[in-house]
Order: sequence, then C-alpha cells, then structure tokens
Amino acid sequence: MNGIPHLTFDLDKPGVSRGHLVVPGGADHEELSLPVFSLNKAEGPRLLVTGGCHGNELEGPLVARRLVEWLPKAQTCGRVIVLPVLNPLAVEAWSRNTPLDGLNLNRVFPGRADGSVTERIADAVSRVLLPMADTVFDLHSFGPGWEFPPASTTHPINDPDLMAATIKMAEAFKLPMTLVWEHPGSAGMFDTLAQNQGKVFVCAEFGGGNVSSEGLAIYEAGVRNALVALGLVEGKADYPTFRQQKTSQTLETRRSSDELKAPARGIFEPCCSVLDQVKQGDLIGILYPMDSLTADAIDICAPGACIVYAIRSGAHVEADEGVALVARPLSR
Amino acid sequence: MNGIPHLTFDLDKPGVSRGHLVVPGGADHEELSLPVFSLNKAEGPRLLVTGGCHGNELEGPLVARRLVEWLPKAQTCGRVIVLPVLNPLAVEAWSRNTPLDGLNLNRVFPGRADGSVTERIADAVSRVLLPMADTVFDLHSFGPGWEFPPASTTHPINDPDLMAATIKMAEAFKLPMTLVWEHPGSAGMFDTLAQNQGKVFVCAEFGGGNVSSEGLAIYEAGVRNALVALGLVEGKADYPTFRQQKTSQTLETRRSSDELKAPARGIFEPCCSVLDQVKQGDLIGILYPMDSLTADAIDICAPGACIVYAIRSGAHVEADEGVALVARPLSR
Repeated sequence: MNGIPHLTFDLDKPGVSRGHLVVPGGADHEELSLPVFSLNKAEGPRLLVTGGCHGNELEGPLVARRLVEWLPKAQTCGRVIVLPVLNPLAVEAWSRNTPLDGLNLNRVFPGRADGSVTERIADAVSRVLLPMADTVFDLHSFGPGWEFPPASTTHPINDPDLMAATIKMAEAFKLPMTLVWEHPGSAGMFDTLAQNQGKVFVCAEFGGGNVSSEGLAIYEAGVRNALVALGLVEGKADYPTFRQQKTSQTLETRRSSDELKAPARGIFEPCCSVLDQVKQGDLIGILYPMDSLTADAIDICAPGACIVYAIRSGAHVEADEGVALVARPLSR
Repeated sequence: MNGIPHLTFDLDKPGVSRGHLVVPGGADHEELSLPVFSLNKAEGPRLLVTGGCHGNELEGPLVARRLVEWLPKAQTCGRVIVLPVLNPLAVEAWSRNTPLDGLNLNRVFPGRADGSVTERIADAVSRVLLPMADTVFDLHSFGPGWEFPPASTTHPINDPDLMAATIKMAEAFKLPMTLVWEHPGSAGMFDTLAQNQGKVFVCAEFGGGNVSSEGLAIYEAGVRNALVALGLVEGKADYPTFRQQKTSQTLETRRSSDELKAPARGIFEPCCSVLDQVKQGDLIGILYPMDSLTADAIDICAPGACIVYAIRSGAHVEADEGVALVARPLSR
C-alpha cells in the first residue's frame, strides 16, 4: 500500500477500533502514522472530530483524548471518528505551522498526494476520513499571544441552509460565544473543503497558548453538549460556567472593519477582557512606545458599541498590527 | 564616548530625568540606546527597577512604564531608576534569549565590554546602573507554557543577614506567593551579581506568556507595596485580590526533589492550579501518550503533602521533562 493513504483498520467494523491513518512518506519525511479512534454503532449521525491542526493549540488533542476514553461508555448510535492530532510534527514543536515545510495545515486542504508532508497529511484526511462523516468538529485554540473566550466558530457560508444548520450546530456547544467570523483567507481551509461538500463544520476555539484545567473543563463540556445535540450520546446539555456565569451569545464580525490596530510600535497592554461589552470611546488597551520614555502612552479606544472577542495578551507590536478584534450580535 | 557604556543624562541631577543608557556597538550589532527614567529626591533608599530581561515576559516592561508615569506624583524621597526594557532585541522578537547571539541575558552577568550584544548590555547595566542602587527589583514573568502565580522570589543566599533582609523585602510585595527558590544554575544571574555586592535583590514573577489586565493590576500592586515598604512613597500596603482571595504565603523549594517529571513522551494535561495544596497521591496532571490510542493515559500524582507553585499549561513533553514544581512552607 506504499504511497496510498489508508487506515490500518476497517471503519465499518462494529464497535470500537483503534489504529492509525497512514500518511505516505515522501522526499521530505518518512511515512507518518496518526492514531485514530472509531466507534461504529451503525445507524445515526456520522461525526469526525479532529485536533492538533496547529501545533501550539493543545486543548483540542487533550479533549479528543478524553472523548476516546469517554465515548465507549456514552455513545448510543451512529459513528464517531476521532483523530486527536492532525499534525504531530507541529505539535511536537509547539509550532502553529509544520517546521519542516513551513506550511499551515489549515491552508493547504485538500492537500496533494505528491506534495510536502503537510500537504500529504491534508490529502490523507481529505481522502480517507472526510468522506466518512457528515459533521466535522475541528478542535482549535486561538494560540499564544491572544486572549479568546471559549467559543464555537464558523465562517459566512453562501448556502443559506448550510449556514443555518452550521450556526445551529455551533450554538449547540453552548459555549460563552458562538461566532460567525469573516475570515481573512478561506482558501485551503479544512472548513471550506468540508462545507463545499455540504457538511456541517464547526471549529471550537479557545485561547491563548496556555491550557488550564478550568479551561479544558469548559471546552470538553462544549463538545459533549454538541454530541448530545447530535443525538450520539444521551444526556442534558448545559451551559458551562465561565467567570462565574452561565452565558452564551452569538456574534458576528467583519474582517474589514472589526480589527483594532496598533497606532505605533511598542508594547500593548490589554485594559479589558474578552466578552467585555464596550461603548464608543471606552478604553480597550494602551500602547506604550518603548524607544523613548518621553513619548506618551497611546490609548486605544472602542470605535463604537461592540463586544471585544479577542485581545492581544501583551505583546511587542509593530504599527498597524492588530491588537483587538470586536464583534456585534448576529443579525439573523 | 564611543566604546564606553554611559547615560545620556546626569543621575545626580535633582528631580525627574528621562534619557538613555547607551550600550556600545560591536561586531554583531550597532550601539543600543535603552530608555531610562530617574527620579532623584536626595536622601533615602536607592532603588533600581528593571524589566524586559527576557523578551517573552512583558508584565515587567508594562509595570515599569506605569511606574514611570506614577512616580513623579508619588515618590517622596530617595532615588528610583527605572529601565523598562533591559533587552529590546529579545522583546521585539518575543523571545527569552537574544536572537542575535542566542544568549540568556540573565546568565551572562556581569557581562563583557568586548563580548556579544547580550554581554555588552549586561556590562553596561552592571557598570553604570547597578552601583547607583542598594535595592534592585527585576520584573520577570515565568514565560509561556507554564502557569505561575503572582510572586516575589529570591534564591538561597549564604549571608544570613542578607537572606533575611531579602525575604523581608520580597514579602513586602504582599503577593500571593513569596518563594525562596533553589535554582538550577545561579552563575551569571543578575541576582547573584547584586547579592555578591551586598544588595537586596528581588525578582517579581508571574506566568505564563499571557498578560491580562487583572494580572497586571496584581503585579503593579505588588511593586507599589514594595515601594511603600521601602519608604519611597507614602500609602498603605494591601494584599491584592487573587482568585477572590487576599492571601500570601512564603514557600521554599529544592531543585533536587521538587520537580515532577513526565514519565513518558506525550501531551501533559494540568489537573490542578497553582497554589493548590495537595496531599500524597493527589492527581496533579495526566500524561497522554499521543503515538497510540491503545496506550493508557498516565496519572501524575503528588509525591507527598506540598503546594503546586508552577505547572505546565499543556505541552507536548519528552520523557523526563518537568511538568510541575512543588514547594513547602518556608522553615525559618
């Protein structure tokens, strides 16, 4: 089977299977074996859960591993396939992109069988696993350097029925935020590929680079809520507690207008937290020029009434680099 | 003055001065100008505050910048010198070490006038600023990948009088933790150099790589408390609120026995938070081998009654890499 991506087990076998997705080797790297879990209980929804697309977003692999331990006692019907780590080369390096070829796995879908290692991973997932699912949960985090609330996210989708079904699925996570996110570039994203095939695709997000036990508990509760909504497991979905509250809101954001940028070079200090509701002129952060102590600190204020959904958690930034992202309630 | 580190202003001038510490150029990098603030109110304690020793620890530079804005209306006597960013090359790269020469600034003190750029920074600080102070606050953070509580720290010091004075100063920050920390290697540390000259040297620490507005507020309150204790400003010191509590404890740790290590390669999941008190056998974290889904997760448990003071916040680790650090109340 050299040269053809394949699974080391038969997905149609009833019950639990544990094996590997084999990604063929190439000039840059030998064959990879990505651990895969499958639980096949015949009729019902077909779900694919993936984590570790970006190597410095580790909530996903951890929650996926928890699912692998929990599903055998919880799943009542349908099929769930779990691939905890899409990109082991990036995870081992705690790096967003694959160090070997510098590629972002989430920009090279559907991949190339004769491409570099990142493209071969995408090709294997696209050809072997994606056809087996109607719904995909891709477990991301926002990554280091930003604060981001526990959230399920999607992007604007042209097909209104798929858009509605996707938002409904995303809201079923019952996380503090559901976000319809106009993304800078959707070419090559796993989302786009799956949506073009008519599948419901939801990203879970959380930030920044640090994983806490509290954060993981919220993240896992969100994924379990979504499994309940799909009917794959029994139980009652409940809003997880975030900052002493059980809340949820659905927001939308536009790429063109909803990014606040650093007015100069310096160190950015966040002055609010994610999900803070602000009105025009409210202080969002301060930019301290660091080349001189006679240069005044610069206040960065809200451009209008909005909700801060992501904020740089302290960083040295260049002029025009983004420091905060804002959104508004979704208009339906 | 080419080739000799110097200040662009006279430190003995009364009142506020803002200028630069000039670090001479060398073969690897041109001359650097590090912004310096000084407020000279004659008799009283002589304090040096530094931040940005490591480039991915940004609480320090931000709190130092806040001090620069606050001290002119608050300081009543003595002299305070503030150098918000010791290593601008590392800060601009969000890197612990200086990218250019790969050196950790906090391992090359007292530096070398004819060394690489990191060594020249250490040399300039050691020769020009350190002699002007009796007390030094070096504002660090624990850096990305770990959780660490707001803390003031010191290391074991041979001179018992200096040790006692240093612990007293560290406790005056009134942060949730004061830590006497047996460190792997003290050679070349700024601390060691200052302590060998009989100075009181306290590090402020906080982790991990993310800066939040709440975290900054606690950090700044700690530094202000220490300024009150020194008598440089008037006011009442108070314990900052951390996790809905106003608490403080002084702990000690030994390098040889107080590091919990990963028993295998995998992704570490933290199962407790910093400052959690645990007893023998309590779960501290779980190590998930990621190469196979048939390998069981491995519980990492407390070796005895102790307090977790630092924990890996999710990470891919190799076998024997540290995942948690524990301590016990200081025996006096």
